[in-house]
Amino acid sequence: MTEQRILSRADLDFLLHDWLGVDDLLGRPEFAEHDRDTVDAVLELAEQIATERFAPHNRAADVAEPHVGPDGHVVVVDGVREAIAAFAGAGFIGASVPAEQGGTGLPFTVARAALAWFQAANIGTASYPFLTTGAANLLLAHGTPEQIEAWVPPMLDGRASGTMCLSEPQAGSSLADITTRAEPQPDGTYRVVGTKMWISGGEHELTPNIVHLVLAKIPGGPAGVKGISLIAVPRFLSDGARNDVVLAGVNHKMGYRGTVNTLLNFGESGGAVGWLVGAEHGGLAAMFHMMNEARVGVGMGAAALGVTGYLHSLEYARTRTQGRPVGGRDVTTPMIPIAEHPDVKRMLLAQKAYAEAGMALGLYCSRLVDEKDTAPSDDDRARAALLLDVLTPIAKSWPSQWCLTANDLAIQVLGGSGYTRDFPVEQFYRDNRLNPIHEGTHGIQAIDLLGRKAVMRGGAGLELLLATIRATVGRADAYPEYAAALESALVRVEKTTTTLHAAGDPDVTLANASVYLEAVGHVVVAWIWLEQLLAVDARDGADGGGAFAEGKRAAARYFFRFELPRTGPQFDLLDSLDTTTLDWTVS
Amino acid sequence: MTEQRILSRADLDFLLHDWLGVDDLLGRPEFAEHDRDTVDAVLELAEQIATERFAPHNRAADVAEPHVGPDGHVVVVDGVREAIAAFAGAGFIGASVPAEQGGTGLPFTVARAALAWFQAANIGTASYPFLTTGAANLLLAHGTPEQIEAWVPPMLDGRASGTMCLSEPQAGSSLADITTRAEPQPDGTYRVVGTKMWISGGEHELTPNIVHLVLAKIPGGPAGVKGISLIAVPRFLSDGARNDVVLAGVNHKMGYRGTVNTLLNFGESGGAVGWLVGAEHGGLAAMFHMMNEARVGVGMGAAALGVTGYLHSLEYARTRTQGRPVGGRDVTTPMIPIAEHPDVKRMLLAQKAYAEAGMALGLYCSRLVDEKDTAPSDDDRARAALLLDVLTPIAKSWPSQWCLTANDLAIQVLGGSGYTRDFPVEQFYRDNRLNPIHEGTHGIQAIDLLGRKAVMRGGAGLELLLATIRATVGRADAYPEYAAALESALVRVEKTTTTLHAAGDPDVTLANASVYLEAVGHVVVAWIWLEQLLAVDARDGADGGGAFAEGKRAAARYFFRFELPRTGPQFDLLDSLDTTTLDWTVS
Repeated sequence: MTEQRILSRADLDFLLHDWLGVDDLLGRPEFAEHDRDTVDAVLELAEQIATERFAPHNRAADVAEPHVGPDGHVVVVDGVREAIAAFAGAGFIGASVPAEQGGTGLPFTVARAALAWFQAANIGTASYPFLTTGAANLLLAHGTPEQIEAWVPPMLDGRASGTMCLSEPQAGSSLADITTRAEPQPDGTYRVVGTKMWISGGEHELTPNIVHLVLAKIPGGPAGVKGISLIAVPRFLSDGARNDVVLAGVNHKMGYRGTVNTLLNFGESGGAVGWLVGAEHGGLAAMFHMMNEARVGVGMGAAALGVTGYLHSLEYARTRTQGRPVGGRDVTTPMIPIAEHPDVKRMLLAQKAYAEAGMALGLYCSRLVDEKDTAPSDDDRARAALLLDVLTPIAKSWPSQWCLTANDLAIQVLGGSGYTRDFPVEQFYRDNRLNPIHEGTHGIQAIDLLGRKAVMRGGAGLELLLATIRATVGRADAYPEYAAALESALVRVEKTTTTLHAAGDPDVTLANASVYLEAVGHVVVAWIWLEQLLAVDARDGADGGGAFAEGKRAAARYFFRFELPRTGPQFDLLDSLDTTTLDWTVS
Repeated sequence: MTEQRILSRADLDFLLHDWLGVDDLLGRPEFAEHDRDTVDAVLELAEQIATERFAPHNRAADVAEPHVGPDGHVVVVDGVREAIAAFAGAGFIGASVPAEQGGTGLPFTVARAALAWFQAANIGTASYPFLTTGAANLLLAHGTPEQIEAWVPPMLDGRASGTMCLSEPQAGSSLADITTRAEPQPDGTYRVVGTKMWISGGEHELTPNIVHLVLAKIPGGPAGVKGISLIAVPRFLSDGARNDVVLAGVNHKMGYRGTVNTLLNFGESGGAVGWLVGAEHGGLAAMFHMMNEARVGVGMGAAALGVTGYLHSLEYARTRTQGRPVGGRDVTTPMIPIAEHPDVKRMLLAQKAYAEAGMALGLYCSRLVDEKDTAPSDDDRARAALLLDVLTPIAKSWPSQWCLTANDLAIQVLGGSGYTRDFPVEQFYRDNRLNPIHEGTHGIQAIDLLGRKAVMRGGAGLELLLATIRATVGRADAYPEYAAALESALVRVEKTTTTLHAAGDPDVTLANASVYLEAVGHVVVAWIWLEQLLAVDARDGADGGGAFAEGKRAAARYFFRFELPRTGPQFDLLDSLDTTTLDWTVS
């Protein structure tokens, strides 16, 4: 065990209380049983369990990844089961599930902040209960009372895990092409037959049962995504019999190795017994009900890895001495900590600017989840839901891209040491590399933002985002340089979006969707930095706040000086309706 | 074994013959014994040995990295020894060593192109003989006739390996602070005492002997880098006795795992016997004699990994079907190869633009090595040496950065599959991550370019680079868009360099040296693309050349449209003499 802090509690407190107004939120009836003290206690408990139960086996689970033992069972390293039990025992699986449904009833924002500790400590082990939370929430939203009664309590208290079974070998990003079948039976159940790929937590002995939530087609339904149903398939049936679900293979990954990732065969012996969740052919909508939160969760995981990599490299840079100041070539003088070299400071500040913004963006979106669920007025709820919809592809993709870059810089700060497995930063980098891939790739997020979210409801979502950012700009008199830069960037977003959608050819509109996603993402994050600046000043006074506030000011300055200007050439390219990629015939 | 091509022979032929004029080079007396046929045969042999001997154990050496066996010897996987023997047997260790010194006498350019096959096939195994080549060249340049006679022939024929022992635990980038001592003895030898860190190939049984080239301080010499001497320390002395060099540890890395990387203790039992190579206290100059070539070699390794990752992802994208064209939602129509999706094409084209440029830049620098060694006039030799000096930090750092990005994109093209160890792209990514670290980190290259190379000889080197690029612009009438963009960028390089050096404070001048390195690197690579375009058109006609020429044109267009414009904000930042990093007190 190391003394190394894995996240910054001071930053989380700042984001939750000084920026996102969690204390106001706690005044709402939904959260009446909680106050600042319980929030503090939850964060403290999360840090403690993450540090004591999750972090210690993070490397071990990477080295000895899950494998199939001689008895056919999946073997994981010691500590995983205990970690999950501690997590469930403390009520984190149902952290944001209302108390009347058996959960802890925390605001989603607080729950997400608490969960970040586990992602920072050990993202591989954290995946198991996180998937279970997603499955429980889905069942609570779409299951019958009997289904909820049967499966949700065991999930919340750690007796059952959940999985999401979407992809198939021939259908990854293209869910329209899944072929898994669910045949209706006279008794109202279904028999599921098919193969599912990339199923995290698909088979293990960590909990007594596993409930698979499976996308499948009920024969006779519409073609494509409109014919997809959601079927719950427990590993063990209520009579204790093993269901017809067979582990067909375990994937071996570059990172995220602690999470067993499986190929599952359903129905090798006639058909796995399953129950329809929600409406027939309504499976994709039900699954996507959860997708916003899952995607924000991916972004938060990327951010948590970014922050923890930053903190590890910061600690190294403060203590490792090497070289002397520019011009100081007298070798009889002592070497200085590398944290004093400008290029190392650049790499630290960039990490801070990326990772703390990723965390802030994820918590902002989580705050929108609370708003859409608990705002006093329907209008406010609708606005929050709309803004969350627009922001989701960015909250998923931006941290996945830039907090991976942060981990890359953490390695570089440590130099040769960072490239060895004696330090954890290389694992953060390998783990984080999954995030631009799963839960919708970077390219899928790009099409979602430009092709759907930017134009849905006549562009109302994007307008709301821009108006929200403009409101911040309007409060930023103290930062005229940043306010002006951000306002200019907003004008470019508007103009570029219009230009792209006026192209008259959907291929041309979407050809450089990823560039659009990245440019708009940087604009959003510049806004997040301006928001944080204003919150720091409001709390500490314009020049106060000591090292914490100075760090926020330096990172914001870094982002506005080094990062936001990157978007200029991106908007130029988009405005030109460039067709370089379309015109090239791959050969 | 896969049918997958690991590099493009057509591209190498184009670069060598149609662009770099290797045939002209072969007309020089130094290369009289070679002609196009021997060059072709050498490339073919390199491809064959790389494919048959190096590639097959690339994954195995990654999985079962070198370790210390029960008898204290370093154990490597099967196939490494045979690969090195085949490499040496074919004359590749001395590929560019003149025939009268026992080598193959190839132009350096041709040798480098041939060696790229081995880096693409298995960079871990390739490192062993590559280090030996470096050591042999260093001895040939600075050793006494007796030293050369004793050590170089065994190196060239595979009986001895070489290492470079620079770093120490407390002195990585700061060589001024090494503490290893070399005590002179009455018999003219030295006794070496100290610890060396990050020594690749420092201990193994792959060759009968190993000759360590060690930087050490002879007592009484000047402090700092001016008091460093170069000492040769063989593992076994000529009487067969084991020298006093002990393996103190093996480093475990994220990638490049096939290359054993060691901590070595010299003189645990009184002192390792060594011989001074070159002048007393002249060790750093001797070592840096080789450094230009070593750094270009690192860049070539990065590029080779970039190209091979591109070719692997290209093959995958051509054969993996998923989804349908934009607007084509009818699932009864067949899915299309992902290589037809614009976003996948973008990721392929970006890889091509990065990786082929990295390869081209490395071969251009190699051509400068030949020019500085064999140009008919002293003036031309001096100019080539000067240009090589300026380009070296870019040829090292640019491919190390952008061909790693290429490998990142290769993973993304393969999606979840790319993240598994069932496909080789994740290993390329892990292997390539070393290149921005070793042989001088990214930050060290940045200081080298801005602090030394850009201003040496009154700026003559940078002027020569700019004039060379301008000559290309002057020939680019057929590409007015690119020519104008490149000329504008050159003006910015000039202005920014002047501004930075006029800052009056070396801290401010160098604060953002890495941004300068990256901006100038992108300008240089835009030039490399324009050069390739002109060479393609000269060979094939402005519209001819089929798929090969179209690919070059598309990649050049990608670079000028998507990449070169990134430099605008970088130059803006530099021109502002931004002190964000200097002003932040790390806390």
